[in-house]
Amino acid sequence: MVASDTGNGTTFSRAERYIGERVTTALERIDPKTIAAAVELLARVPQIFVYGAGRSGIIGRAFAMRLVQAGLRAYVIGESVTPIVTRDDAVFILSGQGESYSSIQTANIVRREGAQLIVLTSRSGSKIAHTASVLLLVEFEEDAERPRLAPLGTLFESASLRLTDGLIAELIRIRGETEVSMRRRHAIMV
Amino acid sequence: MVASDTGNGTTFSRAERYIGERVTTALERIDPKTIAAAVELLARVPQIFVYGAGRSGIIGRAFAMRLVQAGLRAYVIGESVTPIVTRDDAVFILSGQGESYSSIQTANIVRREGAQLIVLTSRSGSKIAHTASVLLLVEFEEDAERPRLAPLGTLFESASLRLTDGLIAELIRIRGETEVSMRRRHAIMV
Amino acid sequence: MVASDTGNGTTFSRAERYIGERVTTALERIDPKTIAAAVELLARVPQIFVYGAGRSGIIGRAFAMRLVQAGLRAYVIGESVTPIVTRDDAVFILSGQGESYSSIQTANIVRREGAQLIVLTSRSGSKIAHTASVLLLVEFEEDAERPRLAPLGTLFESASLRLTDGLIAELIRIRGETEVSMRRRHAIMV
Amino acid sequence: MVASDTGNGTTFSRAERYIGERVTTALERIDPKTIAAAVELLARVPQIFVYGAGRSGIIGRAFAMRLVQAGLRAYVIGESVTPIVTRDDAVFILSGQGESYSSIQTANIVRREGAQLIVLTSRSGSKIAHTASVLLLVEFEEDAERPRLAPLGTLFESASLRLTDGLIAELIRIRGETEVSMRRRHAIMV
Repeated sequence: MVASDTGNGTTFSRAERYIGERVTTALERIDPKTIAAAVELLARVPQIFVYGAGRSGIIGRAFAMRLVQAGLRAYVIGESVTPIVTRDDAVFILSGQGESYSSIQTANIVRREGAQLIVLTSRSGSKIAHTASVLLLVEFEEDAERPRLAPLGTLFESASLRLTDGLIAELIRIRGETEVSMRRRHAIMV
Repeated sequence: MVASDTGNGTTFSRAERYIGERVTTALERIDPKTIAAAVELLARVPQIFVYGAGRSGIIGRAFAMRLVQAGLRAYVIGESVTPIVTRDDAVFILSGQGESYSSIQTANIVRREGAQLIVLTSRSGSKIAHTASVLLLVEFEEDAERPRLAPLGTLFESASLRLTDGLIAELIRIRGETEVSMRRRHAIMV
Repeated sequence: MVASDTGNGTTFSRAERYIGERVTTALERIDPKTIAAAVELLARVPQIFVYGAGRSGIIGRAFAMRLVQAGLRAYVIGESVTPIVTRDDAVFILSGQGESYSSIQTANIVRREGAQLIVLTSRSGSKIAHTASVLLLVEFEEDAERPRLAPLGTLFESASLRLTDGLIAELIRIRGETEVSMRRRHAIMV
Repeated sequence: MVASDTGNGTTFSRAERYIGERVTTALERIDPKTIAAAVELLARVPQIFVYGAGRSGIIGRAFAMRLVQAGLRAYVIGESVTPIVTRDDAVFILSGQGESYSSIQTANIVRREGAQLIVLTSRSGSKIAHTASVLLLVEFEEDAERPRLAPLGTLFESASLRLTDGLIAELIRIRGETEVSMRRRHAIMV
């Protein structure tokens, strides 16, 4: 690629702004009813399980950590201590394209067990979207700049972090948590 | 739960907007020279090591995954296959408050080995800031809403994801990478 | 390097036998009272936390997974969903030399919180040994072959896996578990 | 503590002995030629990838860590920084029953890419056994005690740790490594 006079540093600024704006647009289009339904479900169940493949799974892990600090019981599917999902639990799957085999397989197992399933995806027509009890859609219109400024799942992952942090804000309000009570639940970090 | 007039869903919207705006402000204040210095270093070294404690470390992992897809050799300190850091390498540490023992200890070992150290932190006066070869500062003014809308390190972590994704956009421009070439480096995910 | 007549394959056999025999000897020297005390503690507490640095931590993770399958609540310190340790809980630390900073630091935090601490180590005189409520010692006499056949912590790690699997056999007997009931708790693995 | 014939502590001793003996028997039945072939392959390729589902994957992680300390380049499939497998590389899959979908899927992808595949399994007739370039078989005859003393994959996992540690002993001999040179490659552990 030809480095034009907009060279080093400029691409950084354009990319971070692009990501910020596209994520804001996508999050503000989400139907508030689906957010309310997701929050209600997460606040009510005895156990929350989070799953995502690849980078989506990394964002899911950040969400699970905060759920625990908010006083909820949460697990990441694939980690060593994760127990089985029961029909009373909720599972939260992050899958941008809704196509990764492991996410679809997890969704199918979850539904078979009778547990509730929250799906966060960019594609309403994907296989995984059809398995959802609560469907959280973050959609991005494609444009020419996107592959250079936000390649692969960048927009989805950035939106997922902000969306799940927004869910945490709702959950701590409902549960009467404060930053102080959350800090007290901060695990040993050595 | 009592749904006041600021009820369910509203806190979500306020939180996600608050996070988006505060992160935008913080990222636009960063000195472009430090971004250029970080990118130049990351593009040049044979190996990049990423470290962060807790949730910062999770964001670091997302960054490392993208560095590998961009064709660079990257490792996460603490994972099983991470080799030793040599004087030719660069280490990228994420530490919001700059206080976690393990981050400071990692920084000290890195400097003793003679490797370059990029530090991403919110506090210019922290111990870890003083160890940096390249200091990336994302600063947030405190306000009354922050603990409820973005508790603990939420702002730092959200800024870290967007900042590192911005670094990736610069790195792929410099290296002549495209989304197609990155996708080809997508590891087996089963 | 020149492959002598003891060449390829022979070192493998000598190493696996050496490891097997040395581990057997070390495990049979353990005072049965300390095994009984560890099992009684693990069976009684509401939550078990496992910690180890490096390869010891990997063996600890294998133990934690089996504890969960045995119907106990177990966590790995350092994983994303690990809650705080309370005074009613037990912590199980694996540390061959008893010297790694993070293990000693974890032990100190645990004791300060008032939780019970099981320490599995090779060195009775190590700092970490002195913090234990229950001390499980697996000691190995040094010899000339050890560095080539079982370098670094190999003997300790192999002994740790067999010892913790032995604890599991006791725990499932006490709890009336069977392989069938354990398999039912097998987490989703995709 | 009174060791009655069913008592506390006795099951521990019986289990650890049972595991030790059954693993010894299984490892001594392995054809030395397959060990030699595996070692030759691991020593020759530019990159080694390790994979296993669940507890087998945990043992695989311990193996990968030691491969790196032995001076080889190794990765764990599923970790964040793992690059793509190329036709010049070798992949080492651990799968006790040879049935887990993700292991079979990984094996198929690996073969399609043209890379060499070492399979460590307990079942010569399993699907995954048929995909192997080098097949390492550790077989256990079933008996009445096994489910209580070594439930689920316990024997396979214990055999896998000892077998892979035996491979390391061969690899360090061939490569002229010593415990001192390995310790120098010990990654930062904080």
